[in-house]
Amino acid sequence: MFDELKRKVWEANLRLPKLGLVLFTWGNVSAADRQAGVFAIKPGGVEYDAMSPEDMVVLDFDGKVVDGRLKPSSDTATHLEIYRAFEGMGGVVHTHSTFAVAWAQAGRSIPCLGTTHADTFYGEIPCTRDLTREETETEYEANTGRVIVETFAELDPTAVPGVICRSHGPFAWGPDCDKAVYNAAVLEESAKMALYTLQIDPLATPAPDYIKDKHYLRKHGPGAYYGQGSN
Amino acid sequence: MFDELKRKVWEANLRLPKLGLVLFTWGNVSAADRQAGVFAIKPGGVEYDAMSPEDMVVLDFDGKVVDGRLKPSSDTATHLEIYRAFEGMGGVVHTHSTFAVAWAQAGRSIPCLGTTHADTFYGEIPCTRDLTREETETEYEANTGRVIVETFAELDPTAVPGVICRSHGPFAWGPDCDKAVYNAAVLEESAKMALYTLQIDPLATPAPDYIKDKHYLRKHGPGAYYGQGSN
Amino acid sequence: MFDELKRKVWEANLRLPKLGLVLFTWGNVSAADRQAGVFAIKPGGVEYDAMSPEDMVVLDFDGKVVDGRLKPSSDTATHLEIYRAFEGMGGVVHTHSTFAVAWAQAGRSIPCLGTTHADTFYGEIPCTRDLTREETETEYEANTGRVIVETFAELDPTAVPGVICRSHGPFAWGPDCDKAVYNAAVLEESAKMALYTLQIDPLATPAPDYIKDKHYLRKHGPGAYYGQGSN
Amino acid sequence: MFDELKRKVWEANLRLPKLGLVLFTWGNVSAADRQAGVFAIKPGGVEYDAMSPEDMVVLDFDGKVVDGRLKPSSDTATHLEIYRAFEGMGGVVHTHSTFAVAWAQAGRSIPCLGTTHADTFYGEIPCTRDLTREETETEYEANTGRVIVETFAELDPTAVPGVICRSHGPFAWGPDCDKAVYNAAVLEESAKMALYTLQIDPLATPAPDYIKDKHYLRKHGPGAYYGQGSN
Repeated sequence: MFDELKRKVWEANLRLPKLGLVLFTWGNVSAADRQAGVFAIKPGGVEYDAMSPEDMVVLDFDGKVVDGRLKPSSDTATHLEIYRAFEGMGGVVHTHSTFAVAWAQAGRSIPCLGTTHADTFYGEIPCTRDLTREETETEYEANTGRVIVETFAELDPTAVPGVICRSHGPFAWGPDCDKAVYNAAVLEESAKMALYTLQIDPLATPAPDYIKDKHYLRKHGPGAYYGQGSN
Repeated sequence: MFDELKRKVWEANLRLPKLGLVLFTWGNVSAADRQAGVFAIKPGGVEYDAMSPEDMVVLDFDGKVVDGRLKPSSDTATHLEIYRAFEGMGGVVHTHSTFAVAWAQAGRSIPCLGTTHADTFYGEIPCTRDLTREETETEYEANTGRVIVETFAELDPTAVPGVICRSHGPFAWGPDCDKAVYNAAVLEESAKMALYTLQIDPLATPAPDYIKDKHYLRKHGPGAYYGQGSN
Repeated sequence: MFDELKRKVWEANLRLPKLGLVLFTWGNVSAADRQAGVFAIKPGGVEYDAMSPEDMVVLDFDGKVVDGRLKPSSDTATHLEIYRAFEGMGGVVHTHSTFAVAWAQAGRSIPCLGTTHADTFYGEIPCTRDLTREETETEYEANTGRVIVETFAELDPTAVPGVICRSHGPFAWGPDCDKAVYNAAVLEESAKMALYTLQIDPLATPAPDYIKDKHYLRKHGPGAYYGQGSN
Repeated sequence: MFDELKRKVWEANLRLPKLGLVLFTWGNVSAADRQAGVFAIKPGGVEYDAMSPEDMVVLDFDGKVVDGRLKPSSDTATHLEIYRAFEGMGGVVHTHSTFAVAWAQAGRSIPCLGTTHADTFYGEIPCTRDLTREETETEYEANTGRVIVETFAELDPTAVPGVICRSHGPFAWGPDCDKAVYNAAVLEESAKMALYTLQIDPLATPAPDYIKDKHYLRKHGPGAYYGQGSN
C-alpha cells in the first residue's frame, strides 16, 4: 500500500552514506505523503546495507505506526514535530555529519559567508538552545523537535531548510525527501567552508545582503532562472 | 556539427567530480573553438551522471545559442566575458571547491607559498572585490566576469590562470578545457596547502621570487624543460 | 579448533582499513573466548590484504601461544593486560587513527562535547600518563596495558570503552571484537569532531550532564530504547 | 636487460596515487641496482595510468641515460645526488603530498611528537634551508640534492629516511623503492598528525627520548622484535 513511499525513503536513506554524511547508522530520512496523512521513516539502529524497502516504517501524524514490522528510528518524534509545524515539508533528514556537529557542539549558528551557502540557505543556519533538564528527561525526542520549531519562531523554514541542534547535530528538510537530503549535504558543506574561512580570517563577515538575496532568489521563487526550470 | 567540441567539453565536465572539485551540479566547464567563433558549455542544473555529450550547449561570442536543446549554465555570461577579454583562452572552469571558496569567503588572495603553487600560478591567485549592489542586481553573471577582468588589469591571465571571486568561488582558464580543469585542481590544492601552511606558521611568507621564477619558467615559455616537451 | 574465533577476529581486523582507521599494518584487533580461556589476535607486521583466517594467533591468558604459526602482534601484551583487568571484555582494538593520535600526542583527554560522543562514551575519553623510562625499557607493551588499567582506577571500562595512550594512540574494547571496532571508530570520529569544535570555539565546554546521561542511557542499560532491542 | 628493475620502479610509482600522495604527475620514484651501477626512474610529466614498465628510464650514477626512450623526470638530478651521498639507499621518492608541503612552506622541521612518527623516523624530519638565488638559477635540481645532503651533515639518513625541502616538498628514501614509498607515506601521515596535535595544544612537546628510542629500536637494528623478523 505504501510501497512507493517506502521505496523512495529507502533510496533517500541510502544516499546518506554515499554523500559521506553518516557513519554506521547515525542518520535517518523520512518522507511524508501529506494526502495520505502518513510518513515513512528508517527503522532504528539497522545498518544501511542490510535494509530493504519493506523495512521502512509508516506512521500517521499522531505518531502511530500504520505499517511495518520494525521499530521506527528513535528520532521519529523529532521528525513528527517538524512535519506538524512546518506545513509544506515532505521530507526530513537527521545526520551526525562531522562539521555540522562541530558547529552544534560549539553552540554557534553557521554564518552565511558566501554564495555556496546562500544558494540554499537564506541567511545563517541557526543553532538551537540546549534542552533543559526537564525537556531532556521527559519526551526528549519530541522536545528536540519543539525546540527546533521554537528556533524558527521568526524564521521561514522554507527559506532556511535546516538547523543545528545544540550539543547534538543537524536536521534538514524540504518539499520532498530528496531535496531534504540535498539540503543536509549543503548544510554540511557550508559548515566545513565556514570553519575554513574563519581559520583564514577569524574576523570574516557575512556576505553582503544583496549577494545573499541574488543567489537565493536566482534559484527560488517566481524570478528563479537557475537550472532548466521554466521560470 | 560541433560534435567533437561537445564531446570534449562533456568529458572535461565529468572530470570535475572525479577530481573532488564539485558536489552535485556546482561546477561547469566550457571549451571554445576560436576559429569557429563558438564555445560549448554544460547545461544548467543537470547532474553529471545524467549528462550526455548532446546535452552540451553551443553559443557564439555574442552569447547567442547556436546549438543545443537545453538552457546553458547560469554562469555562461561569466565565461563569455572571460573569453572576450583573455584572448588566448580556449577553456574556462567554475567550481565551488572547498578550500578555494574558503579563501574567497575570507576575501583574501592565495599567497604563493611554494613550488606546487608556483609551477602553475606565477604569484598569488588574486581575490576580486565584491560586486556592488547595482552590479549584483543587474547582469550579475556578466558583471562577475567584468570584475574578474578588472582584477587582471595589471596581471597576465596566461601566467596567473585563475582567480577567486570574493564571497563566491574560483574560476580558472587555460589554452584548452583540459588545461583549465588542471588549473582549477591546482588552484584548489594550492588553497588547501596555503591554509595548512598558515596554521603551522601564521607569519609564513611567500617563497623567494627566484624560486617562483625558476618553477614557473621550467614548465612554461621558451626555456621550459619539464615533462617530455622538445624545449 | 579455534576456527570460528580466528575467522571472526580476521574479519574484524579487515574492517579497520575499510573504516579508515589504519594505514599499512598499524592496527590490530583481538577477540577473546572467555570460556575457552583464550584470545585470538592478528599476527605482527602482516599486511591486511595478505592475511587469512589461519594466520591469526591464539593465546591463553598467560600469554602463551596455543595455536598459530606466526608471531602475534607486538602489542599482544597490551591486549592481555586489558583482558585480565576488564573482565567483561571480549574484544580489544589498537589503531593509530589520525585524530585520536593527535589528542594522544597533545596529551589531552577528549572532552565529551556532544551526543555523538555521549552515545558511546560516558564522559571524556581519558589520556594516560606517559610511561616512565623504566616502564618503557622493560616490558613496554605489558606496561602500556598496566598504565591503561591504572587510568581506569576510578572509571568504568564498560561506560568508557576506550582510552588514548599518551604520545602513542588509542585502544578501544567491548563485549566482542565487532563492538570494539565500532568503539574505535566512534573514538576517532569523536576526536575529529572535538578538534573542529575547539577550532570554532576554543572555550567550548562539555555538554550538560543530563544530555550526556540521556544519550548514554537511551542506548545502554535496562532503560535503553534505541535500535531494535526489546527494552 | 633492466626489465625487473623497471617493472619494480613502475609498480612503486603506481602506489603513489593509491596512497593519496600525488595529484596528476606530481611525484616520482626511482630504484637503484647498486651492483649494476644504475637506477631507474619515472619519465617526466607522464600520467600514472598511461605509463608502462618500458617507459621507465635507466641512468648510471654519472646521470647518463643507459636505457629508455623518454626523458627522465626533471627531478632526476636530485635523486642522483641522494644516491651518491647516502650509500645504503636503493630507492628515492619525491612527492608534493599536502601536509608535508605545508610544513615545507612554513619552513619548519616536523617534530617527533609520538610513536607513529618514531616508529620510522628517529627524531624530527628536518626542513632544509631555501636554496640561494645562484643555486636556484644554475643546476637547480642537483643543488636541491646537495642541500638535502648538507642538511644531513650531522644526521644519519638511515635513521631519518626523509626530508622536507623548504618552499617545496618532501623526499624520502630507503633500502629499496618499496620501503622508500612506505617512508614517504609515513612522512605525510606524521606531518598531518603533527599539525593536528599543535592545533589541540600549540605548546605540545616532542615525546620523551626513551619512548622515541623504544619505538625506533623495536623495529630497527639488532634488537628489533616487531613483525615477523627473526630477531
